[in-house]
Amino acid sequence: MRLRRDPRATSYLENSDKVIQNPVEYKGKWAQLFGNNNCVHVEFGSGKGGFITQLAHLNPDINYIAVEKAETVVYKACKRADDMPSNLYFLYFDVADCLDIFANGEVERIYLNFSDPWPKARYAKRRLTYRDFLDKYKQVLVEGGEIHFKTDNKGLFASSIEEFSMRKWLIKNVSLDLHNDEQTGNIMTEYENKFSQLGFTINRLEAVAP
Amino acid sequence: MRLRRDPRATSYLENSDKVIQNPVEYKGKWAQLFGNNNCVHVEFGSGKGGFITQLAHLNPDINYIAVEKAETVVYKACKRADDMPSNLYFLYFDVADCLDIFANGEVERIYLNFSDPWPKARYAKRRLTYRDFLDKYKQVLVEGGEIHFKTDNKGLFASSIEEFSMRKWLIKNVSLDLHNDEQTGNIMTEYENKFSQLGFTINRLEAVAP
Repeated sequence: MRLRRDPRATSYLENSDKVIQNPVEYKGKWAQLFGNNNCVHVEFGSGKGGFITQLAHLNPDINYIAVEKAETVVYKACKRADDMPSNLYFLYFDVADCLDIFANGEVERIYLNFSDPWPKARYAKRRLTYRDFLDKYKQVLVEGGEIHFKTDNKGLFASSIEEFSMRKWLIKNVSLDLHNDEQTGNIMTEYENKFSQLGFTINRLEAVAP
Repeated sequence: MRLRRDPRATSYLENSDKVIQNPVEYKGKWAQLFGNNNCVHVEFGSGKGGFITQLAHLNPDINYIAVEKAETVVYKACKRADDMPSNLYFLYFDVADCLDIFANGEVERIYLNFSDPWPKARYAKRRLTYRDFLDKYKQVLVEGGEIHFKTDNKGLFASSIEEFSMRKWLIKNVSLDLHNDEQTGNIMTEYENKFSQLGFTINRLEAVAP
């Protein structure tokens, strides 16, 4: 998602206690920040944050971290969350550098929702499910940790299955039409809500680290 | 596919030199029947046979065997094939018993096209991509042998991905919209031709035996 830079964003983010300014300082120390030893679930590419904010409200015993590259998007996410739960923090950071902010085994689950599909083959390496990303995710995840992934993009879903399989992740709970399958508890992202109303089918899978 | 039993089928099939009456007698001896040591590709659930007959014409250096449970369907397949290629045989047999007709490593590739989806969970074991079938296929396939699978049924495709992954097959060349992806050389089945015209998207994958 591309948004024009909002000049108010920088000062707002610097003064928000829900936005982590220097996340590398918390590598291996996220439990200290949350003040408990609950599991940590992260969303990579959290966009406007509606998904993870809902999850954080629903599951007060899980710690949530929303990671989004675009500073302005994080700003919008924080501005719209009136009652930000205490078990959720936002940060703007490049997922490619996730090993700089999470220690090995520090995360229990990673959410990837409607990631940029980068449809052209020459940009395949930028997809958040490309093999190099999966290898990093494996490091930050606990043993048996999971990725929960959904997208409306058929090309991205297809290539992701290939990448997970190539790296020997166990693929489970696959749906090629999430909203018509019998699955309970689906939390919709802003994007998902809009595009499913337009008739796009949503694909989803879970993958267990090898 | 269900067809009424045709009383002419039995006598026709018994007298056709393209239909193998006692396939168990050829276990480990298919090369003798074909009179060469070319690779053997089989289609499990070959229906009216249009797909494999086209393939056999295109690839004279590959031996093809069409396996279909329903006798009457095999009859129709043979009747409509005017110029049956010499590298193709038909047989009616239950795929569940495929270990009775193929020796270990006797098959290089298995095609599964638009298999019965058995959508209800209690019939999952009947799906031709269920784990017990995959284990049998692994036995009859050469090392690194492949399954090429396509279906328009989203539920069957999703559960098949789970089964392949669970049994550690390598999933590759995935498409969730075969006819709109850049893939060359797709041979359509009768079913595929009909249903893709009706707007159903076709899913396809290849899986390499573990």
